[in-house]
Amino acid sequence: MDLFGLLHLDELSHGLANLSMFPFFDMAHYIVSILALREQPGALEVSRVSPLACWFSSMLFCFGGAVLSAVMLAEPAVAPLSNSTGVLLASITWYLVFYCPMDLVYSCAALLPLRLVLSGMKEVTRTWKVLGGVAQAHGKYKDSLLVMIAIGWAKGAGGGLISNFEQLVRGVWKPETNELLKMSYPTKITLIGAVLFALQQTHYLPLKTHHLMLVYTAFTVVNKSRMMLTGSSASPFTVVELAIYKTLFAGHSPYAALTGEVQKARLDQGAANGSTAAAGSRGLGENGATGKNTPVSPVKAQRGSLKAKKESENGDTTNCKKIN
Amino acid sequence: MDLFGLLHLDELSHGLANLSMFPFFDMAHYIVSILALREQPGALEVSRVSPLACWFSSMLFCFGGAVLSAVMLAEPAVAPLSNSTGVLLASITWYLVFYCPMDLVYSCAALLPLRLVLSGMKEVTRTWKVLGGVAQAHGKYKDSLLVMIAIGWAKGAGGGLISNFEQLVRGVWKPETNELLKMSYPTKITLIGAVLFALQQTHYLPLKTHHLMLVYTAFTVVNKSRMMLTGSSASPFTVVELAIYKTLFAGHSPYAALTGEVQKARLDQGAANGSTAAAGSRGLGENGATGKNTPVSPVKAQRGSLKAKKESENGDTTNCKKIN
Amino acid sequence: MDLFGLLHLDELSHGLANLSMFPFFDMAHYIVSILALREQPGALEVSRVSPLACWFSSMLFCFGGAVLSAVMLAEPAVAPLSNSTGVLLASITWYLVFYCPMDLVYSCAALLPLRLVLSGMKEVTRTWKVLGGVAQAHGKYKDSLLVMIAIGWAKGAGGGLISNFEQLVRGVWKPETNELLKMSYPTKITLIGAVLFALQQTHYLPLKTHHLMLVYTAFTVVNKSRMMLTGSSASPFTVVELAIYKTLFAGHSPYAALTGEVQKARLDQGAANGSTAAAGSRGLGENGATGKNTPVSPVKAQRGSLKAKKESENGDTTNCKKIN
Repeated sequence: MDLFGLLHLDELSHGLANLSMFPFFDMAHYIVSILALREQPGALEVSRVSPLACWFSSMLFCFGGAVLSAVMLAEPAVAPLSNSTGVLLASITWYLVFYCPMDLVYSCAALLPLRLVLSGMKEVTRTWKVLGGVAQAHGKYKDSLLVMIAIGWAKGAGGGLISNFEQLVRGVWKPETNELLKMSYPTKITLIGAVLFALQQTHYLPLKTHHLMLVYTAFTVVNKSRMMLTGSSASPFTVVELAIYKTLFAGHSPYAALTGEVQKARLDQGAANGSTAAAGSRGLGENGATGKNTPVSPVKAQRGSLKAKKESENGDTTNCKKIN
Repeated sequence: MDLFGLLHLDELSHGLANLSMFPFFDMAHYIVSILALREQPGALEVSRVSPLACWFSSMLFCFGGAVLSAVMLAEPAVAPLSNSTGVLLASITWYLVFYCPMDLVYSCAALLPLRLVLSGMKEVTRTWKVLGGVAQAHGKYKDSLLVMIAIGWAKGAGGGLISNFEQLVRGVWKPETNELLKMSYPTKITLIGAVLFALQQTHYLPLKTHHLMLVYTAFTVVNKSRMMLTGSSASPFTVVELAIYKTLFAGHSPYAALTGEVQKARLDQGAANGSTAAAGSRGLGENGATGKNTPVSPVKAQRGSLKAKKESENGDTTNCKKIN
Repeated sequence: MDLFGLLHLDELSHGLANLSMFPFFDMAHYIVSILALREQPGALEVSRVSPLACWFSSMLFCFGGAVLSAVMLAEPAVAPLSNSTGVLLASITWYLVFYCPMDLVYSCAALLPLRLVLSGMKEVTRTWKVLGGVAQAHGKYKDSLLVMIAIGWAKGAGGGLISNFEQLVRGVWKPETNELLKMSYPTKITLIGAVLFALQQTHYLPLKTHHLMLVYTAFTVVNKSRMMLTGSSASPFTVVELAIYKTLFAGHSPYAALTGEVQKARLDQGAANGSTAAAGSRGLGENGATGKNTPVSPVKAQRGSLKAKKESENGDTTNCKKIN
């Protein structure tokens, strides 16, 4: 692309592409991931009751992508454990975040300026992980775009995609929600990245790898910083998503009325996410507010509004109908 | 077998064995599978809320057997995705069944005559899948009958066997039931097929492969058609099953009384299945009526009848005892 | 170690190391495992409703370690099925324990003297399994202590670690508990064994393999016999565990108050286990009493004591807040 030469970005992109993730960026990834785990409801209690379950959960947050992609490619799921330095760094981080005297490490890392820098660095590692996954799949399945996207996505957003099973380690089970039913921002941006890198690797996208790395990294870092600073998660894709949704999936079906409601719910949901995502959680943290996007039948939805006030005092997903 | 020569079925069986599943039979399998998904309770709502979760669920219905057998044999679980043509065909089917304007495709495909033909063709693919699984396992584990049966079964009835996890993708979790606890007709017929083909491959069953293919295919197609036409699922195995059950598993145990009740329940269940199976669902659709076969202790069962009326208003599995 | 020579234990340890597990020790492992399954709540009912689910559950109890370690190392999960003799022995055991006329086999095997001998023999197989797992991982991942520990642990205590999924086969789902959140004695002793053998294999522990085998086997057998005979499970590690916990995980955190409560709960729990473990269950049997160790927030815990009497009549984990 001449544009890159024109803007003198060629050297910058080469510099970025040669950047080593180890140890600083990896460290930032571990810190931000384990902070996100600590902010899950109930995680602190688990850390006191069973340090081992807490440690295992932390490892799934840090290496979930590696584990998931290994399972998908029939490679040993324990392989991430053989990366001794990585596991050691992640374990030290886990220990300091959860058990540091006076809670010093958590208090410091949770300060907005530091967290902003760490989150930005974590976004950089996403590019490397997605590209690594796509390249690995490209080596095994030459011409299968779908496999490349799947592995790139799994490697970049594994922690989120296996969140149901990560929660199970901590004794939490929320079957009514998962990252496929309601994608969080990090999962979405990783999917887009996986598609872009897969297209680039198969030469459908006429860009050089390091150029795409620069563009994608810049986008994710800037967007993440904006979201954390403004506290609004007005996702840059909402408009595109809705356009695609209306064109492809709304149709003239007998469920058009329902579809309209769903779209409205999605918009509401998008707005609601704004405040929660700003808390800096990796998207896993949004599970707390999933009552809204659980698939409900239209009939139930109508009755639901009548019962909403009563049920709001209940606060969990079991339907305990009180008939006094 | 001279019988085949006598009946001039030798050529027919050769013709059948050389039949290519691609594209028409595969297509029928995709259509019938995705129709069955669409008829699951809540599936339509999921298709509006999250097309991606719906697509992934559809792929598990279509390629569940391939995924399950790959996991069991430690082969890449993403391999089915690398079959681009298959995934493309299944995806087009998924789109048309769920989002076609005016719901034309679903309305047509759900018509009894067309559905009868498609279901018959789908049954033909079962033979190929079971045989493929058995042969693959035979290549890896020469003399292990059990592995051959397991892989053949997994490949032919994978969608049903992993239904708990397929439902999880759609935010549904029904731990109290699975295909091992209460086998549906398709899972049962596939298991029988896997046993027969495994015995045939290891020469315990003195039949040629193409002859067995003809006999098994004819049996499954005729039986499926009969069940769809008559609307009764008087399973041809009920008598044999009960005989085996009474001989082997009833025993003179102190639980004989309980066993009697269970047998009665199994018979009732068989009769009840008659009406639901006629709807043409692949057996996954029968999950809705599983309250009956959930294992309950005899004591609970007795108390249960007293409480049944009250609990029927509750409608879910949590026991919210109200003490006012 | 000269000590071994001094005590004339060298020959004994050589003799032990050359002991063949097949068929007697394997058989004892199958019997004790399937007895433990039979003593699970609801297992007998499942055995009447679905012999196949019961058989599959039994195989997971007997070969869970092999399956789990195979999955972790990306080896075929069906491989244990290809061990025809083992599966046949386990299946015969399963049949006799669950369906023997007059319940003769269960009645005999459950007698304390016989059960004591069988449990001791089962503990011997643990040594072999842990060492086998560690050695297998050592062959693949030369210098990764963590992988060796993980595989050794998985192979020795697989049935317990996958208990959530084993229960799912029987239609039982208890997400609020697992072996990581609350380790049972067998899981704990296996973890210690895996650590010891991993240290020995990497020469950090200056012991010969057969000497460590003797020491570890003697410890597990004696300890298991003591626990079964005295009916108290005063774990020999409680003191060490509490010391480690207080030093490393209590800290000066703002949650010190909570931590104190948790420690107290752990002690209470230890005492409570005493009576249940004596029943000879493999630790899986303790799931019934997990209401106590479910992670609860400190606020809930305080309210909990007020509500405890009412909720004790409820008996399950759903929080049905009644606001009348």
